[in-house]
Amino acid sequence: MTDIWQSAMDHAVAVARKAGQVVRDAVGGVQKEAVMVKSSSIDLVTETDQKVEKLIIESIKEKFPTHCFIGEESVAAGEVCLLSDSPTWIIDPIDGTTNFVHTFPYVAVSIGFSVNKQVEFGVVYSCLRDEMYTARRGKGAFCDGRPLQVSQQQDIRQALVATEFGSNRDPPAVDKMFSSLKRVLSIPVHGVRGAGSAAINLCLVASGCVEAYYEIGIHVWDIAAGLLIVSEAGGVLMDVKGGPLDLMSRRILAANNRSVAERLAKEIDDFSVRRDDDAS
Amino acid sequence: MTDIWQSAMDHAVAVARKAGQVVRDAVGGVQKEAVMVKSSSIDLVTETDQKVEKLIIESIKEKFPTHCFIGEESVAAGEVCLLSDSPTWIIDPIDGTTNFVHTFPYVAVSIGFSVNKQVEFGVVYSCLRDEMYTARRGKGAFCDGRPLQVSQQQDIRQALVATEFGSNRDPPAVDKMFSSLKRVLSIPVHGVRGAGSAAINLCLVASGCVEAYYEIGIHVWDIAAGLLIVSEAGGVLMDVKGGPLDLMSRRILAANNRSVAERLAKEIDDFSVRRDDDAS
Repeated sequence: MTDIWQSAMDHAVAVARKAGQVVRDAVGGVQKEAVMVKSSSIDLVTETDQKVEKLIIESIKEKFPTHCFIGEESVAAGEVCLLSDSPTWIIDPIDGTTNFVHTFPYVAVSIGFSVNKQVEFGVVYSCLRDEMYTARRGKGAFCDGRPLQVSQQQDIRQALVATEFGSNRDPPAVDKMFSSLKRVLSIPVHGVRGAGSAAINLCLVASGCVEAYYEIGIHVWDIAAGLLIVSEAGGVLMDVKGGPLDLMSRRILAANNRSVAERLAKEIDDFSVRRDDDAS
Repeated sequence: MTDIWQSAMDHAVAVARKAGQVVRDAVGGVQKEAVMVKSSSIDLVTETDQKVEKLIIESIKEKFPTHCFIGEESVAAGEVCLLSDSPTWIIDPIDGTTNFVHTFPYVAVSIGFSVNKQVEFGVVYSCLRDEMYTARRGKGAFCDGRPLQVSQQQDIRQALVATEFGSNRDPPAVDKMFSSLKRVLSIPVHGVRGAGSAAINLCLVASGCVEAYYEIGIHVWDIAAGLLIVSEAGGVLMDVKGGPLDLMSRRILAANNRSVAERLAKEIDDFSVRRDDDAS
């Protein structure tokens, strides 16, 4: 049986690489302007974000005119964010925008593709480090062609855990993030890291560099590609409280195995965020 | 006037590169063993740490037989840790040992050199990424020969701040780390990062990727090289509470400028750790 989505995936890799070049050039611009105060960098990131998303979507539409799209910038511009059964490209042109502004080296282009609400392939291009992470459902996960495998660690006390504070500075949410993190650290675990990009945190789980990653507040475009990279590398995905993962719920817990994930879920304090598909 | 320490610095760069190769090979070993549980990785890190420190010290002693040494592993083995006026090499063979165990990509060889208790040059080799950071007092800081400059950001609300939880899981210390971090985040700042290596966090300040880095609990060998890289890149160094930096106090606050540093110092809660030169 031929893989009907292989050509779409090949196109995703090619366009992610092209988009990553644009992002890399823009970061080069930020670096050159380092002698000035970076007050204009917020404008630059928005401008680059929009430009890169347009580049990606136009290039895909040309080849797949009937497909649907969910893109960070399109949603920000008012388009609906609903995941249907149709073939849908889920795009984050720059995952890690704070890193982008600061030239911190973890910035990614993320392209996921779903059919019948199931992710068929995912592409995360860590563009400042020129690392291409890919996964096709049922066919494994790779970084630059090298197969990825999650850590085999069973003991959470030997685990490195990734998470983020994100951009939510709402005091009750910050309280919950801190209480969760403190409980996780006190399990104890080996340590806590955060790349500043959900897509790259997921790739770090898939690569075995961290055992787990959790966050409340991410969006579907941050994780659609990376979550398949985790599961194809042998990892597990669930809700932060341990139920099944809901793509639109803005919550994720990814881990190398179920035992680490379930142990971690016990320590995570819940707080509510508006769903991605809440159009009210 | 010739620079009497230039040949020592050249030697430090050469030996750091050689040491980094050994570390890189060892990490390659961890990666290959990823299919096994990494329970033996703690032994591996200790073994590699000791082997690399021995390699560095022997190589330097051959050229500079009268010089003194402060090395992480030598101190762990019972040698005194006192900074005298004599030419002293201050060595961390693997900064970021937790990263090493997890193959998380920030692992450094750090070599500082002090005379009259003043750091004359510093070399930090980020060996998994093959980046060589160097600074010579009064002559600037560089990464692979490219001059480094700290961020010009004056507004702390636009700052990215690095810190670490380290390995201290003593509940009162953890409480203080969390209360500090929460106050820092709520200033608000753009975000919080941590490379998992003090030496690399300092290089990130010097490179302008983060505006500041603070930590209580680090050792003189973690920071001796990196602090000069920060100051030669135009940054400032002080105690976490704002006084002058004391190399042996196990506390550091590094920032792109005084205004960011002093604003940050206000939010950092103090806790006591045993000094590096406390021989009692």
